[in-house]
Amino acid sequence: MEGMNEAVDMSETQNLLAKVKWPADLRQLDEEQLPALCQDLRNRIIETLSENPGHFASSMGAVELTVALHYVLNTPEDRIVWDVGHQAYAHKLLTGRADRFDTLRKEGGLSGFPKPSESEYDTFVAGHASNSISAALGMAISDLLTPGHENIKTVAVIGDASISGGLAFEGLNNASQHANNLLIVLNDNDMSIDPNVGALHRYLSKLTTSAGYNRMRYRAYNFLKRHRVITDKGRGQLIRLTNAIKSAISKRQNIFEGLNIRYFGPIDGHDVRNLVKVLRDIKDMKGPKILHICTQKGKGYAPAEANPSVWHAPGKFDPKTGERAKPEGKQHPKWQDVFGDALVELAKNHDEIVGITAAMPSGTSISKMMDVFPDRVFDVGISEGHAVTFAGGLAAAGKHPFVAIYSSFLQRAYDNIIHDVAIQGLPVTFCIDRAGVVGDDGVTHHGLFDLAYLSVIPGLKIAAPMDENTLRDLMYTSLSLNGPIAIRYPRGSAPGFPPYAPFKEISVGKARMVSSGDCGVAILTIGAVGNDAVKAVESLKAQGINATHYDMIWLKPLDTHALGEIAKTHKAVVTVEDASVRGGLGSAVQEWFSEHHPDVVVRKLGVPDEKWVDHASVERQKQACGYDADAIIKAVLKLKDT
Amino acid sequence: MEGMNEAVDMSETQNLLAKVKWPADLRQLDEEQLPALCQDLRNRIIETLSENPGHFASSMGAVELTVALHYVLNTPEDRIVWDVGHQAYAHKLLTGRADRFDTLRKEGGLSGFPKPSESEYDTFVAGHASNSISAALGMAISDLLTPGHENIKTVAVIGDASISGGLAFEGLNNASQHANNLLIVLNDNDMSIDPNVGALHRYLSKLTTSAGYNRMRYRAYNFLKRHRVITDKGRGQLIRLTNAIKSAISKRQNIFEGLNIRYFGPIDGHDVRNLVKVLRDIKDMKGPKILHICTQKGKGYAPAEANPSVWHAPGKFDPKTGERAKPEGKQHPKWQDVFGDALVELAKNHDEIVGITAAMPSGTSISKMMDVFPDRVFDVGISEGHAVTFAGGLAAAGKHPFVAIYSSFLQRAYDNIIHDVAIQGLPVTFCIDRAGVVGDDGVTHHGLFDLAYLSVIPGLKIAAPMDENTLRDLMYTSLSLNGPIAIRYPRGSAPGFPPYAPFKEISVGKARMVSSGDCGVAILTIGAVGNDAVKAVESLKAQGINATHYDMIWLKPLDTHALGEIAKTHKAVVTVEDASVRGGLGSAVQEWFSEHHPDVVVRKLGVPDEKWVDHASVERQKQACGYDADAIIKAVLKLKDT
Repeated sequence: MEGMNEAVDMSETQNLLAKVKWPADLRQLDEEQLPALCQDLRNRIIETLSENPGHFASSMGAVELTVALHYVLNTPEDRIVWDVGHQAYAHKLLTGRADRFDTLRKEGGLSGFPKPSESEYDTFVAGHASNSISAALGMAISDLLTPGHENIKTVAVIGDASISGGLAFEGLNNASQHANNLLIVLNDNDMSIDPNVGALHRYLSKLTTSAGYNRMRYRAYNFLKRHRVITDKGRGQLIRLTNAIKSAISKRQNIFEGLNIRYFGPIDGHDVRNLVKVLRDIKDMKGPKILHICTQKGKGYAPAEANPSVWHAPGKFDPKTGERAKPEGKQHPKWQDVFGDALVELAKNHDEIVGITAAMPSGTSISKMMDVFPDRVFDVGISEGHAVTFAGGLAAAGKHPFVAIYSSFLQRAYDNIIHDVAIQGLPVTFCIDRAGVVGDDGVTHHGLFDLAYLSVIPGLKIAAPMDENTLRDLMYTSLSLNGPIAIRYPRGSAPGFPPYAPFKEISVGKARMVSSGDCGVAILTIGAVGNDAVKAVESLKAQGINATHYDMIWLKPLDTHALGEIAKTHKAVVTVEDASVRGGLGSAVQEWFSEHHPDVVVRKLGVPDEKWVDHASVERQKQACGYDADAIIKAVLKLKDT
Repeated sequence: MEGMNEAVDMSETQNLLAKVKWPADLRQLDEEQLPALCQDLRNRIIETLSENPGHFASSMGAVELTVALHYVLNTPEDRIVWDVGHQAYAHKLLTGRADRFDTLRKEGGLSGFPKPSESEYDTFVAGHASNSISAALGMAISDLLTPGHENIKTVAVIGDASISGGLAFEGLNNASQHANNLLIVLNDNDMSIDPNVGALHRYLSKLTTSAGYNRMRYRAYNFLKRHRVITDKGRGQLIRLTNAIKSAISKRQNIFEGLNIRYFGPIDGHDVRNLVKVLRDIKDMKGPKILHICTQKGKGYAPAEANPSVWHAPGKFDPKTGERAKPEGKQHPKWQDVFGDALVELAKNHDEIVGITAAMPSGTSISKMMDVFPDRVFDVGISEGHAVTFAGGLAAAGKHPFVAIYSSFLQRAYDNIIHDVAIQGLPVTFCIDRAGVVGDDGVTHHGLFDLAYLSVIPGLKIAAPMDENTLRDLMYTSLSLNGPIAIRYPRGSAPGFPPYAPFKEISVGKARMVSSGDCGVAILTIGAVGNDAVKAVESLKAQGINATHYDMIWLKPLDTHALGEIAKTHKAVVTVEDASVRGGLGSAVQEWFSEHHPDVVVRKLGVPDEKWVDHASVERQKQACGYDADAIIKAVLKLKDT
C-alpha cells in the first residue's frame, strides 16, 4: 500500500449532504449540484467505513446511480428494488438514515442491507442475489392491476454477477409475459465479489464494446419522442423502427431483446447528469425495459479501484493512505482455510476429487485448490442450484465433488440436493460454510436451518466438527462413504493452530466424550459450539461441579449408543447447537430420549424457534439466543438441582 | 370422440421390436428399417398405455429421437440424460426392459421415469424438470478430466418447457466455461403439460419460423467437413465463418450463441433417418453444442396429436377409437378442485387476490380462476423460485397471492420462501398440492419433506385440512393473517361432496376433537390422513375400544392447549401424518410431551426417516410405511395395553 497516498482522492466536500436528508431534499437540488453530492456521499462512505467495516467497493460504484434514481423517481411511492443490498449505502444515506450511518451493521444500528422494517424506502429484502427482477416484476404488475397505481414506477437494480443466477433468468423470461412497466438497471461492474464467470458475463463484455448501435438507437428514440412520433399506440412501430436501425448498424445478438425486453445502453454509470437524462427519457416508456450501465467497483477511491476484490469488504482502513488495518496478534486460521488446506492435501492423492464453488472462491477458500489444480475446481457463478446438480453429474461419472457453499445460500439448492444427489446416493461432500449465526451480515445470511432441512433427507449423513482435525478427518472420511455427506462449520476462526495431524478415518455416527462428569448432567454439542461447552465445563469445574460433555460430531447417524450410556448415569441432558433448535440435534436427542429413556430431561439450547436473529456480533447473537457458555452453565446448574 | 375411428393410425407392425432387445441389437439394423422400428415402438406404447395408464404424449413425440440417439451413440458407455423422464418410454423399450414394459408404474415394476438403479442406461434421476444440462455437463467435464474417457459422448435431452427453468439457464450459462463436448438436444414440442409460456418460448417459436439460415449453415458445415476444412484446430475458423454466413443471411438473434454454445437447427424431429444423419455429423464436434429439433406431442396417434394436454397422462383408453375410459361411479371432487373452486369464490370478493402457478394451471386447478379472472392469474412456467419471489413482490405491493405448487416442486423455492416472503412477513398463501405420497409417479414426486423444511421457518404458519370445508376456511382465514401461511393437501379425491358450507374464519392454532374416547390413547392427525384415523376409530369401536381423535389442523402454531388436555386423560398418543416422521407433527408433539408430560408415550406414524418410497398405489405406500388405518389400529391396541 506504499505510494497510495497520492492516489487517494478525498476532494473537498460542499457539505450538500447536510442539507439532503431525504430524497425530497435531493430533488430540490439543481442538476449541476449532483456531482458534488456524489462526492459528499463518497467521502462519507470512506470516512465511516474506514472506522466501521462494511461492504465498500459495491456501494462506491453505485453512488451516481443511487443519486440519479432518487432524483428522477418519486420515491418512496416509486420503488427501487436493490439486488444484493450491499451496494445500497448511498441509498441509506439519502433516505433519512445519514445520522445513524455510523451504526451500520452494529447491534441495534442500521442493517448492512435494505430492510423494509427499517425504512419505507427499502422495498424488499436483498441479502441473496438475483431476486430483484422477480420481486420488482411482482410490484410492477400489481400496480397495473390496482386503480390509481398505474403511474408508479418500479426499478430493479441488478449487478452483472447477480443476473447470471437462474432466478434472475426466470424473472427476465417472465418480464414480458404480462403487462408491466418495469425498468431493470443492469449495473455492470464486470465482477462479482470475485471476478465474474459464465457465458452471459462474456456476452455483456462484448455488448459494452459495441455501443455504437445502442447509442444511435437511443438517440433515434429521443428524436421520435420529441417529435411526438411515439405514443403508446406507436410502440409497435418504434420496435420495428429500432429493429431496422439495428439491422442496419449492428450484427450484435441481444439476449434481452431475444427475451422481449427493450434494451438501452451501455452508458457510463458514473456520469450522474447523463444518467438523470437517460432515466428521465425512458422511465415513462411502457413495457419492460433494461438499461445497461457500466460502473467501476470502488469508484472514487484509488486503492479500491485497483483491487476491488480485496475492497469488497476491506475491514478498517486509513482513509488517507488506503492502508488496511492488520489484525492484531497471532490469528487462528479460519475454518474456511482449514477446509481449503485440507482439500488441497486430499486432492493431491485423490484424482477423483473436484471442487465446486458458486461465485465464492476466496470466500470459501476453495481458491487454495484452484491455485494448485485449476482444472479441477469449478466456479459456476451465482448459481447454487446448478452447482449441486453439476456435482451430481460429476459424481455419476466417477468423480468425488466437494461443494463449498454458505449455509444460507445452500437453501437455493435444496431440491438439487434431494433430487440430483441424495435420491441417487451419489458421493458428494457438501462443505457448508457460514453455518450458524454469522454476526453483522444479519438476518439474511445466518445458516440456521441447514440441520433441519437436511436431516429429513434419507441417506444424507450430517456432521459438524468442533476442531480443525475433525474437519480434516471428516473430509477424508467422506471419500470412502460412497454416498452424500454434509459437513457444516461456522464463520470465523477455528479454535487451534496448525500443524494439523495426519488424516485418519473417523467412525461414522460415533460421538466423542470430551469430559466425564458426575453431576448428573451431560452437555451434548455438535460443531464448533462444543468449544463454548468446554469453557462452560471448565467454569463449572471451578465451582466444583463436574459436567459430562460429548462432542456428538454426527447428527446423522446419531450416536444412540452414546445416548444410552449417558442415560445410565445422567438424569438430564443439555443439547447445544449453532442452529435453530427445531429439527436439529436437540430435536433428535429429545425424541430419542422420549422413546427410550423418558426419565432423562432434555433441555435444548440454540436459536429459538420463531426467532429471526438481527445483526450484531456473533458473541452477542449467541448470548441473545441463549446458547453461549454462560447459558450452558445456567442450564447445567438448573438441571443439576431438579 | 366420435369420428375418431378413422383417425387412429395403427399401422401393421414388422415386429422388429421382438428382435431389438438392447441398443446393440438396434445398431445391427439398416437405417431403412428405423422408421418401421419407430412404428413398432409407437404401437407398443399405445397398446400398453391403453391398459396401463402412464405419460403418453411426451413419449410418443420422442420415439424417433430415442431411436436415433441409441443408433448413433454407443450407449450405455455414451450417455443420454433425459430431462423430465416421462418422455423416455421408448428408451425403456429399447434398453432391455420391453418384457417388463407392462409393469410400468406398478408396484415392483418399472419406474415411470429413468432410474439409475433400474438400468445402467438410465444415467440420472429425471423427475423434476430442467436438471439435465447441469447433470450432463458434469458428466461431460468429468470425461475430459479422466484418461481414457475423452471420447465418451454425453447428450442432454431437454424440452422447450424445461429449458425455461432457472436451473437450465444456469447450466447453459456454464456450458462454455470449461472444456467439454456436451450435446444438448432441445426437443421443442411447443408445449409443457399445459401450453408453454415465457419469452424464451416465443423466441423459440420465432427461431423455428426462420429456419432458412440455420439449414444453410448446417449445410455449410457439412460441406466444410466433407472437404476436411474442419479439424479441431479449425474450429475457431468455422465459428468465424458461420458468423459471417449468419450476418449475410439472417438478422435473427440467437440466444444460445450469445451464451457461446453452437446452435444447429431447427430440424424435423420425426424424420428418424435425417436425425441419424445430423447426429452423426455433429456428435464428434468439440465444444458444447445444441441441436434444436421440432416434434409433436402425441405424434402418431391422432387423438393425442389433436389434444396433447389431455393426452399428457390420459388414463386408460380404447386404442382403436381413442376413447378414454370414464371413471366409474360418482367421483368425489379432487382436493385440487376444492382449492380451485374456493379460490374463484374468494377472488370474487377480494380484489387483492392473485393466483400463481408454475406451469401447472390444470394440474393445480388454478385454471378455474384463470377462466374467470385471466388478468389475475400468472402462469410463470417451470420456475418455482421465480413464482415465489414474484409472489413476494406482489404481496409487498399490496396483493394477496395464492401460490399453488406441488410439494416436491416447492423444494425448488425453499430459499425464496425464506428470503423473499417469510423474513418480510409478507401475506402469501402457499397452497401445497400433492403433499404426501403420490402413488405411481414414485420417489421423485412425493411431497414428504414440506412439514420439516417449512416448520423451521419463523413466522410461517402451517396447516393441513382433513376435509373440504376446512381447506376452504383455511384459505379464507389466510386473507386476514397478514403474514405467510402454507396449506398442504394431497393428490386425489377429497372425502366429501359439495355443496360446500359458506366460508368462516377458523381459529389459528386450534385443533378439533373428532371423537372422544376412554381407552387412554389419543390419535393426533394432520391433514387428510385424519380420514384414515376415522376409519380406525370406527373399527376400534366395533371391538369395543373408544379412542380419542384430534384433527390437529395446524402444525404451526401447534395447539399445545389441546395437548395439555389430552395429557390429563390419556397415557399415550399416536401421531399420524402423510409426511416424513422427522421434523413434522410427530416430532413437534413428541418434543412438547417430553418437556411437559414425559409420562405420555408418543408413537409417531408416517413415512419412516431414511426411507425413499418407491412407486406403488397410494394405499400400498401408506401401508408399507405403516400409517394406514390398519397401522393406526395396531398402534392404538399396542399402546392401550402398555
